[in-house]
Amino acid sequence: MKIGVFDSGIGGLTVVKSLLEHKLFEEIVYFGDTARVPYGVKDKNTIIRYAIEAVEFFKNFELDLIIVACNTVSAYALSEMRESASCPVVGVVEAGILATANALSNKHERVLILGTKATVNSKAYETGLNALGYENLQAKATGLFVPIVEEEIYEGEILQATLKHYFSSVAKPDALILGCTHFPLISDVLQGYFGKKCKLIHSGDAIVEYLEKEFVFSQKYEKTQLKFFASENPDALKTIAKKWLNF
Amino acid sequence: MKIGVFDSGIGGLTVVKSLLEHKLFEEIVYFGDTARVPYGVKDKNTIIRYAIEAVEFFKNFELDLIIVACNTVSAYALSEMRESASCPVVGVVEAGILATANALSNKHERVLILGTKATVNSKAYETGLNALGYENLQAKATGLFVPIVEEEIYEGEILQATLKHYFSSVAKPDALILGCTHFPLISDVLQGYFGKKCKLIHSGDAIVEYLEKEFVFSQKYEKTQLKFFASENPDALKTIAKKWLNF
Repeated sequence: MKIGVFDSGIGGLTVVKSLLEHKLFEEIVYFGDTARVPYGVKDKNTIIRYAIEAVEFFKNFELDLIIVACNTVSAYALSEMRESASCPVVGVVEAGILATANALSNKHERVLILGTKATVNSKAYETGLNALGYENLQAKATGLFVPIVEEEIYEGEILQATLKHYFSSVAKPDALILGCTHFPLISDVLQGYFGKKCKLIHSGDAIVEYLEKEFVFSQKYEKTQLKFFASENPDALKTIAKKWLNF
Repeated sequence: MKIGVFDSGIGGLTVVKSLLEHKLFEEIVYFGDTARVPYGVKDKNTIIRYAIEAVEFFKNFELDLIIVACNTVSAYALSEMRESASCPVVGVVEAGILATANALSNKHERVLILGTKATVNSKAYETGLNALGYENLQAKATGLFVPIVEEEIYEGEILQATLKHYFSSVAKPDALILGCTHFPLISDVLQGYFGKKCKLIHSGDAIVEYLEKEFVFSQKYEKTQLKFFASENPDALKTIAKKWLNF
């Protein structure tokens, strides 16, 4: 199976990492729209326009599946991408909703959804979780984590001050949705802040769980062919990919 | 005189504020490329392409002058903009260089240049200051201040931790160039950190100083007509403009 992974920038590499660990695919074509990142502060029409352009780009390859690794795109543009694409398109939001439901013991447990401003405004996670009967939900736009992670800050005072800024008046949740691909890179710090009992929902693991349920994988690929494309500075993307994915 | 002010986003409003205070212009047309902000992490060719598109946009108005309020664009794309434009184009970097020279007592004083990654990599301030005989220069990419200011955080623990992160091993300067239009919004915090004796170079004030030297202004305008354009979400730009410019 040959798939495309689309993200607004480099964050989607955390999803690729999960895909590689599970050896599901023969070939992964990654496209990061690094010239126009971040999407999380853009409005709906712009996000849809960029997402359709990504589908057009993927038509250069004969893909069996497109995975939308970006939560913001998944929240706003999935149906438009499906209309334009000639293969199935799956997004991390629907996967994250199911993974959250699987992780919780009962429908009264508290869920905290973190994301960019656009993802939180979309209420995509709440809508999906409500439909499954979960009502104890809170969402918080925590966009500052994105540039902090991009400065390669994964611990220390800036992060601690930012956690306090965002969460000092937020009740501790039973599950925490890392609704932006950058957030898994600070999962240790978040786990430390919210405590060991809090279940962290990671987009990469959620999408693997979702794919294994929806598709039949008849074989494991010991080696996956990786192709990286970026709308700007592809060398920088490849350097980070090598670092994060250890290849 | 009817002018255009170009910025990658909302930051250039700090330059407009200075222009209004000095009552230099009859009409100001502001264009913020909010759909593609931030420029500070993009590469040179992309910045030049976007800057030329801005010049094309300004051709819809009969302008006497274009001011580039964005340090990153001023550092990389000024000559290309001048080639495309049919009116003079001035940038905050050349203005900032002259303002710094005017603010210093002698050529041995220490200058610290703050900016986005792209502005700092361009070495535009260093090149200009070197040419004037200033050698005691240090530049520091402090990009995190941009999203922090955009979260409307102007003081407190996150900023203090970020100051420590960037400056704990930096010698205190005699002059500090605020080489990004967002930084004047945290000038109190920066002044507090570096001490009262440190001269802060503000792009808005620098451009006024530069214009008053280069052009003849025969009258003051008690009322300036303001027009705001944004490549995305113009309402958000107007709301912030009203707040920052008090109109």
